[in-house]
Amino acid sequence: MTTAQPPEEQPPADQPPAEQPPTGLPPLPAWLERGMADLFPAGSGAGACSDPDQQLAARLEEAERAGRPLRIKLGIDPTGSDIHLGHSLLFRKLRAFQDAGHIAVLIIGDFTARIGDPTGKSATRVQLSAAAVEANAATYLQQLGQGQDPERALLDFETPGRLEVRRNSEWLTGLDLPQVIELLGISTVGQMLAKEDFSNRYGSGAPISLHEFLYPLLQGYDSVQVQADLELGGTDQKFNVAMGRDLQRHFGQRPQFGMLLPILPGLDGVQKMSKSLGNTVGLAEDPLSMYSKLEKVPDAVVDDYLTLLTDLDMADLPQNPRERQKLMALEITQARHGGPAAAAAQVDAAKLVAGAAGSGAAAAEVPEASLAAVNFPAKAFYLLSAVGLCASSSEARRQIQGGGVKLDGEKLADPNQEFAGPEVLAGKVLQLGKKTFRRLVAG
Amino acid sequence: MTTAQPPEEQPPADQPPAEQPPTGLPPLPAWLERGMADLFPAGSGAGACSDPDQQLAARLEEAERAGRPLRIKLGIDPTGSDIHLGHSLLFRKLRAFQDAGHIAVLIIGDFTARIGDPTGKSATRVQLSAAAVEANAATYLQQLGQGQDPERALLDFETPGRLEVRRNSEWLTGLDLPQVIELLGISTVGQMLAKEDFSNRYGSGAPISLHEFLYPLLQGYDSVQVQADLELGGTDQKFNVAMGRDLQRHFGQRPQFGMLLPILPGLDGVQKMSKSLGNTVGLAEDPLSMYSKLEKVPDAVVDDYLTLLTDLDMADLPQNPRERQKLMALEITQARHGGPAAAAAQVDAAKLVAGAAGSGAAAAEVPEASLAAVNFPAKAFYLLSAVGLCASSSEARRQIQGGGVKLDGEKLADPNQEFAGPEVLAGKVLQLGKKTFRRLVAG
Repeated sequence: MTTAQPPEEQPPADQPPAEQPPTGLPPLPAWLERGMADLFPAGSGAGACSDPDQQLAARLEEAERAGRPLRIKLGIDPTGSDIHLGHSLLFRKLRAFQDAGHIAVLIIGDFTARIGDPTGKSATRVQLSAAAVEANAATYLQQLGQGQDPERALLDFETPGRLEVRRNSEWLTGLDLPQVIELLGISTVGQMLAKEDFSNRYGSGAPISLHEFLYPLLQGYDSVQVQADLELGGTDQKFNVAMGRDLQRHFGQRPQFGMLLPILPGLDGVQKMSKSLGNTVGLAEDPLSMYSKLEKVPDAVVDDYLTLLTDLDMADLPQNPRERQKLMALEITQARHGGPAAAAAQVDAAKLVAGAAGSGAAAAEVPEASLAAVNFPAKAFYLLSAVGLCASSSEARRQIQGGGVKLDGEKLADPNQEFAGPEVLAGKVLQLGKKTFRRLVAG
Repeated sequence: MTTAQPPEEQPPADQPPAEQPPTGLPPLPAWLERGMADLFPAGSGAGACSDPDQQLAARLEEAERAGRPLRIKLGIDPTGSDIHLGHSLLFRKLRAFQDAGHIAVLIIGDFTARIGDPTGKSATRVQLSAAAVEANAATYLQQLGQGQDPERALLDFETPGRLEVRRNSEWLTGLDLPQVIELLGISTVGQMLAKEDFSNRYGSGAPISLHEFLYPLLQGYDSVQVQADLELGGTDQKFNVAMGRDLQRHFGQRPQFGMLLPILPGLDGVQKMSKSLGNTVGLAEDPLSMYSKLEKVPDAVVDDYLTLLTDLDMADLPQNPRERQKLMALEITQARHGGPAAAAAQVDAAKLVAGAAGSGAAAAEVPEASLAAVNFPAKAFYLLSAVGLCASSSEARRQIQGGGVKLDGEKLADPNQEFAGPEVLAGKVLQLGKKTFRRLVAG
């Protein structure tokens, strides 16, 4: 028995031939392709071009024809509380899908965060209390725009039917042993050991606890539960997203597409942006801190930031690298804090840079403070009184706890933060309140 | 801080020094060591000899001193319904522990049998209905002696406090995902892949489903739940029994000892006794079938059968191999069916052998029946009428269904059983009822 080929649609004779690929499908929209690192399945092979299981363009067309928006899955781990720009590019893509009429399905991995790594060996899988997880989740949602000014929100929380926030405890809490065995039965040891990080660890003789094999399956099971049409992730998520496809197939669903975005380089321009590496810009940071950091990013990554973190037309940017960078910093700060605050940050940052560089007129506005009389290691509160910014250590403590002290534009949160020696402070600008600046000098 | 050594007991001065190892512990009793293939931990190293966690003799002594019998675990899979001699040597050892005052903890793996292998790839892990599992379990217990004549029972079901029958569904049904993750976290991929069968399969590129890694952990968790002091198993169970030790340690229990018994060779004397290889003697078989089969076992394995399946003193056996073998067959049949039935079986078997061999006077008692007129392949009911043992095919069917037909002493259960050609029947004795025998000949 042969299967009939679906009839190919012919363009009506009275219209000019459309500018389309030979499949009859429109190309993927520019907003969708922007910054994309990988899309799978890529849809090659006979018949694939018109198959909505193989070709995203066909799935988009099918969705539009049926009036059924696609379900776009993005999972987040509520193990920390700060969202930084490295995460936000995924939310920006999710938002673009929302704006095109699709449904963002945001999955908060509350169950997995509460379990953590029972062996205690994994630094990335800390076990958190239910309260801590919920607090983190609430902070996340607030940073994404829940209950905030919709103008500045990363996601669209307002338009009805554009967002589903789900917690994986919904379906994982009730999972019993036969179901876990069914999930485990879907994958093999060979498949897991082909995953890059497992493969490296197995090859080097480092132990891999068996429960670690379960996490990709649980993440894949999330796709089944929310019936995802597409899952967004970083390029490091390819294995897990593909696992979601296997699980959906196993449970009789159409497998999701996987769309992977690059891992954002951090402020050092080399390593990935990661809190543990201290090279992040957090969404919660104030305009000056955000702008000053972005302005200093190495030239090599400025275009990545522009592509992944702004909507600016890449063909229509200043050629001068400094201007290009300032535009990037301004645009990203503005999206978060609005035009006036971003502009003010740009002005303040210029003062700081000038002051720190000790050059010209601007430098005069930032008086120096010598570190010569400071005993190191020095705690923050002591530093403030030692350089004469505060009259006493106790006043310095109050100022720091009140949030009024910054170092190079970044808030000092802990009065007991310790500085090892003058070399980590020299050249930096210490700021008290809105108007008092001191450029620290070693001599 | 140093740990004080427990004081070594000195024999009282007015008694002659006991014949003991230098540790002050008696050797393991002979009933316990008989047929043992492996015992672990073996208890070497300083202090191990008096450590009841390292030395079984010390644990036994401790149990006696405290008046607390040991808990001896044996797990069975209720996936089939027939117990054969290959299993029974384990039950015999379990019974020996009961007779020495310890508690047999028989674990019926009902939960795992109901799950089976969800991928359907494993022939040894068939998924069974709850009703089928319970029926198998009931048949097992009946064969082990529940509700039967205590004289012939494999286990002691009578003496209070000597037997606990547990089902692993008791503790596995309620296991939730965090608990499964905890179990998985106890073992590593490297540890599992060191297991011989996994290692072979992984090495040859055959897929290993992830859920297969869970079964050794679940079996180990059974040891935790029943607080086993010692687990019995075949030598192929070493990995799983050792896993039980790991899990008990993880859950703060004293780890069990592992006692492994050999895998019994089947009637062919080469491969292990296994239903799928058709080389078994089942406990449910009638005396004649049991005796005739045992009498034909190759000489090389007769002593294994004597050691593992009887209590006969090995130093006090006939030297003549035929006598030794007959004694073995008689003793095993007698233990199951009693003295008179075993003796009768020995007489009947002699007739059959004589008849089948066509030698001497006894052969005259077994008339021949020619297979020349039989059309092959031949079904059992047709065979009976074709050789003239029954008047019609329908009578033959009734006789077979009534259990009255045997081939070489083994009951023919299925009227539709097919025989491929005369070569599989020639020389065998077909028996109808108690008195009608025909020796089948090809010509």
